[in-house]
Amino acid sequence: MTVIPRIGITLGDPAGVGPEIIVKALSQGASLPPAAYVIFGSGRILEEEQKALGLSLPLSAFNSGTASQRAGFTLRDLGLPSGIPVKGQASAESGRASFLYFEKAVEAAESGSLDAIVTGPISKHAWSLSGVKWRGHTEYLTRKYPEAIMTFWSEPLKVALLSHHVPLREALTRVKARTLEAFFLSLNRSLCRVWPQPFHFLAAGLNPHAGEGGLMGREEDEVGEAVRKARAAGVDIEGPFPPDTVFRRAVGRPEVMVIALYHDQGLIPFKLVAFGSGVNVTLGLPFVRTSPDHGTAFDIAPRRVADPASLLQSLRLAAELAQAMLHLGA
Amino acid sequence: MTVIPRIGITLGDPAGVGPEIIVKALSQGASLPPAAYVIFGSGRILEEEQKALGLSLPLSAFNSGTASQRAGFTLRDLGLPSGIPVKGQASAESGRASFLYFEKAVEAAESGSLDAIVTGPISKHAWSLSGVKWRGHTEYLTRKYPEAIMTFWSEPLKVALLSHHVPLREALTRVKARTLEAFFLSLNRSLCRVWPQPFHFLAAGLNPHAGEGGLMGREEDEVGEAVRKARAAGVDIEGPFPPDTVFRRAVGRPEVMVIALYHDQGLIPFKLVAFGSGVNVTLGLPFVRTSPDHGTAFDIAPRRVADPASLLQSLRLAAELAQAMLHLGA
Repeated sequence: MTVIPRIGITLGDPAGVGPEIIVKALSQGASLPPAAYVIFGSGRILEEEQKALGLSLPLSAFNSGTASQRAGFTLRDLGLPSGIPVKGQASAESGRASFLYFEKAVEAAESGSLDAIVTGPISKHAWSLSGVKWRGHTEYLTRKYPEAIMTFWSEPLKVALLSHHVPLREALTRVKARTLEAFFLSLNRSLCRVWPQPFHFLAAGLNPHAGEGGLMGREEDEVGEAVRKARAAGVDIEGPFPPDTVFRRAVGRPEVMVIALYHDQGLIPFKLVAFGSGVNVTLGLPFVRTSPDHGTAFDIAPRRVADPASLLQSLRLAAELAQAMLHLGA
Repeated sequence: MTVIPRIGITLGDPAGVGPEIIVKALSQGASLPPAAYVIFGSGRILEEEQKALGLSLPLSAFNSGTASQRAGFTLRDLGLPSGIPVKGQASAESGRASFLYFEKAVEAAESGSLDAIVTGPISKHAWSLSGVKWRGHTEYLTRKYPEAIMTFWSEPLKVALLSHHVPLREALTRVKARTLEAFFLSLNRSLCRVWPQPFHFLAAGLNPHAGEGGLMGREEDEVGEAVRKARAAGVDIEGPFPPDTVFRRAVGRPEVMVIALYHDQGLIPFKLVAFGSGVNVTLGLPFVRTSPDHGTAFDIAPRRVADPASLLQSLRLAAELAQAMLHLGA
């Protein structure tokens, strides 16, 4: 018997497109990877969504006594919110609900009853309305797991970010040889746990033309030193490369990941080439976590025209990574 | 009789792909815009190149006494270098030669005998070997014309850069409302002189998610203030937008130009979508200047396999902008 991965799916903000894309994606039976899916959310919201979409999911109720390692869909009904929220409107109650779904899924993964979680889009505004002290999934995870690394995966391009949600001015101060060396080693180690093939990393420089030998900035010396040390430690990495050409070097090469030194250096090119099919993968956690690369899309949520492509990719990648992790015995 | 533009073409570094792509491009008679082309370079190098490529250009010798407003190719033979340089090798003599070609073309444009110049790729290393004190075309032009603005044009995307060849750390300090407002007005004014249709500008923010209301940096307040003032002065501009989505907003809209706050913010996306067909356009000069978006390509120069596409685009755009400038009577 093959072991199938256990994947938690959080519903996201009930007023956003999360419930819609989840129902749409899980209805595409044949293109879903075999897994035991556990949805963390509200039974009432899911029923409402299925009715609105004219779709029906074969959901079993969650029962903590039974093993969840059977293919199919289980609902972990967390009750909240008390009413049906208005699509497209941020509210404290939806914020509280989406945080609860996320928190419970993380707890389940930490306790070992899930191998991966796929998070539906939440509204940062709704979280703040409800008094949740975290600004989003990423902040919650990186505070709890300081080794967490944000990576972005798509067919044409893969990118890892040295820093993410900090002002650019602050991001620059993190470009130090020691920080970078630790980051390169940690990234490589995390990937070895979830990916069978070795990655080839391309490190971007910070300045125009990668500083052009010191004429336009010196941070590349830091990157270069860290690259040399990481290579000596067995990491397959090169760089620093000029930021404006390193992404073209990587496009279309599945074994290559570009290491970007700040949020937009990596996400400008990623969002340009990955269109709606990118997946956010958080590494360095004791479990796999993926999520679609779009938000709640409050503007289109009332019309129910959202595309589940990015969520489907997130589910496939979560299954693939979790499967590899199980095989690699990490 | 229609007035045709007078376009100077500089040969670039004789050891690079410049002579090759110029001979290839000028041999494509039918797809060249009607213009009086004046090549600033060396007759010997051009002869050598034509022989190697099996092509032949109908070149007339330059004669300062005759009007140059006749369609066709004229050679302004500047003698240097004394021998035939080895393809792919930077040398002081090639550096000196390529600087001379450029300098003489700029002088001709400044004196009013050219409407536009298209510059072939030079080697910064060769310039420095020969003792030229400028680091490249851009530095020469921006020192001489502090109002010069670097823009990048392609079919899918157009980008203007607030700053270019400075360390990223220094680029950040230029993000001030006053500097930005002056830049927006100057960019708009320069474009009005060379382009018949009005442009719609999208200003990028500096920080992740454009600062998310001050949570991740405050520079967007500066951008916002400058945008408001420029709008009040009649410029069609919006922003600041999150850097990682503003380029997707612009792709495929020919009337839109994104204003990037630093070199790589603009050139990472530009080089990703424009492939080999991008054109560098310097605005704010008393003449039009365009150039291909690639360098000397010393690595492939000996094999003579370079693609003239970007140079052809540079010639077409130079002709179009110069034509519009003549019509608009600037």
